[in-house]
Amino acid sequence: MDSYAATVARMPALRDAVAADPARHRVLTGERPTGPLHLGHLLGTIVERVRLQRAGVETVVILADYQVITDREVAQRLPEYVRGAVLDQLAAGLDPQDTTFFVHSGVPALNQLMLPFLSLVSEAELHRNPTVRAEHALSGRALSGLMLTYPVHQAADILFCNADLVPVGKDQLPHVELTRVIARRFAERYAPVFRVPEPMLTDAPDIPGLDGQKMSKSRGNAIVLGMSPDETAALIRKARTDSDRRITVDPDNRPGVFGLLSTAALCTGRTPSEIAEEVGDGGAGLLKKVTTEAVNTYLAPHRARRAELAAEPGLVEEILERGNERANAIADATLDEVREAMGMRY
Amino acid sequence: MDSYAATVARMPALRDAVAADPARHRVLTGERPTGPLHLGHLLGTIVERVRLQRAGVETVVILADYQVITDREVAQRLPEYVRGAVLDQLAAGLDPQDTTFFVHSGVPALNQLMLPFLSLVSEAELHRNPTVRAEHALSGRALSGLMLTYPVHQAADILFCNADLVPVGKDQLPHVELTRVIARRFAERYAPVFRVPEPMLTDAPDIPGLDGQKMSKSRGNAIVLGMSPDETAALIRKARTDSDRRITVDPDNRPGVFGLLSTAALCTGRTPSEIAEEVGDGGAGLLKKVTTEAVNTYLAPHRARRAELAAEPGLVEEILERGNERANAIADATLDEVREAMGMRY
Repeated sequence: MDSYAATVARMPALRDAVAADPARHRVLTGERPTGPLHLGHLLGTIVERVRLQRAGVETVVILADYQVITDREVAQRLPEYVRGAVLDQLAAGLDPQDTTFFVHSGVPALNQLMLPFLSLVSEAELHRNPTVRAEHALSGRALSGLMLTYPVHQAADILFCNADLVPVGKDQLPHVELTRVIARRFAERYAPVFRVPEPMLTDAPDIPGLDGQKMSKSRGNAIVLGMSPDETAALIRKARTDSDRRITVDPDNRPGVFGLLSTAALCTGRTPSEIAEEVGDGGAGLLKKVTTEAVNTYLAPHRARRAELAAEPGLVEEILERGNERANAIADATLDEVREAMGMRY
Repeated sequence: MDSYAATVARMPALRDAVAADPARHRVLTGERPTGPLHLGHLLGTIVERVRLQRAGVETVVILADYQVITDREVAQRLPEYVRGAVLDQLAAGLDPQDTTFFVHSGVPALNQLMLPFLSLVSEAELHRNPTVRAEHALSGRALSGLMLTYPVHQAADILFCNADLVPVGKDQLPHVELTRVIARRFAERYAPVFRVPEPMLTDAPDIPGLDGQKMSKSRGNAIVLGMSPDETAALIRKARTDSDRRITVDPDNRPGVFGLLSTAALCTGRTPSEIAEEVGDGGAGLLKKVTTEAVNTYLAPHRARRAELAAEPGLVEEILERGNERANAIADATLDEVREAMGMRY
């Protein structure tokens, strides 16, 4: 059984354990602020974060600004994307009383953990990581030191706050595996300072974009959560479809039509076939109208809450300031334990 | 002209520039606390530090505790070696009013610079570093992530405090070269936050150990500064020589005799030939007696000062505490500039 299958098999027991005693657990999750959050983020991960928080599990959300430059030269518009990510997660239901939001660049003691952790992994292990290899290939750039080592940085993200649950997709599993290795090796060489975290595989479906490909801001196929209804309509109008008036579910031959059907289905809780049947031979025009309505109706409460929150002066700044403070306090305490364990007391 | 020759050629002009306006310069130097400091450290680098300090150049001395684990699994007796390194440098003449002593593990904002700096170098550049390759081969261990990336950590050491002078031996030149690359690339991508530092090649001779090989604690051929005169005599008595009673300068065929001659010469300001002539055909016994006397006489004032300083309760702890505070203040200010330059203000 490979690592993925083993993780899938562990999921039911893990979910039961979390449900039985949610206060014993801490989730570390987050994203790279590379662009505005879209429907894929909301349905793929954020609703699950909200569910865990409501179940009573403490959540730490990292806005991984340093990891933006793993696959590109410089980061663009970070303040805008960080602010937007906080607003979208608050609008989706995360409560800053229960959830800590912080930025990587604001927590030096977390980043310091890179040093001892880098000593615990071999260069060969870093090179074997399949996700790093795939992301490097996609980036089209020379492999940077940061791209090679960012899984160690992710281990610091997870271990600094003693998180034991890490929601991941299949492609992030190797990073959690490496984190587990680092936690165990630190215990062998020094002392058992860290909990060994468990990956929590999301059971959210893959969210296709408007073109039927994976939803991604850079592909222009993503419905951004903060868009207005008119911007949403305009984006959907531009989606590439075909001239066959009969609307059918055919992901391979009609990816654009399938993307629209899936989007409408996800936003209405129906299936793509049901939507296709409803549109019948109304053609792409009617399909786009139905999809636009589905998205705008689904997102209306989110967008209303988001607009309210965005209008509160200083709200996001305060949440980040408090979150950074809390993350620093946790990281400083962890780093103290690490220094003690490594004999670095002078 | 290769990089070494070019650096050698630049040295006279650099020394003149420093002498003309010492207050404009800052030196970053230091060592890994892997053992007690010995005569090789004193004559090879510490006397030069004292000279620069006396000329009015501000000096920052790093005790690189994290870099101890680049080439070994765990660090041993760090508090003892760190304390000893501070005592020896004070005894040699470094003044804690003018010189900042700090430990790596105590300055998180310095270590955080690893993240942006790792994004500025390629994995291929890290692999090409000849010193990393040589040290890796010597270590006999798998190449760790920390061994591969420690030159980037050294760049953080140098750049966090805006040092422009880095005293190095030939084998450390590639690290300063990489630091210069990082400072320049940061300026190209973001803003000119860092001075581009210059390597200062030491003109101290190679200091052979008692066996004629490079002086090193692990080889057992090193005269530790903190030893007592009796311990020194005992160590020299055990040195391997030969039964030829005529003492001659012959590094290749009589390395042990040569090691003793060189040591006595360095400690008396004479040449090995002069010492050899003086011993004549007194054999290894007389040579050892002469060498012991030379070393103990030379080190007597150092050892007396060291003992006085060691007897002051809390002295080293206070110097390190103040030094760490000062290093943290400098590092925090630098990191703020780096965040500003990278657009990481929220």
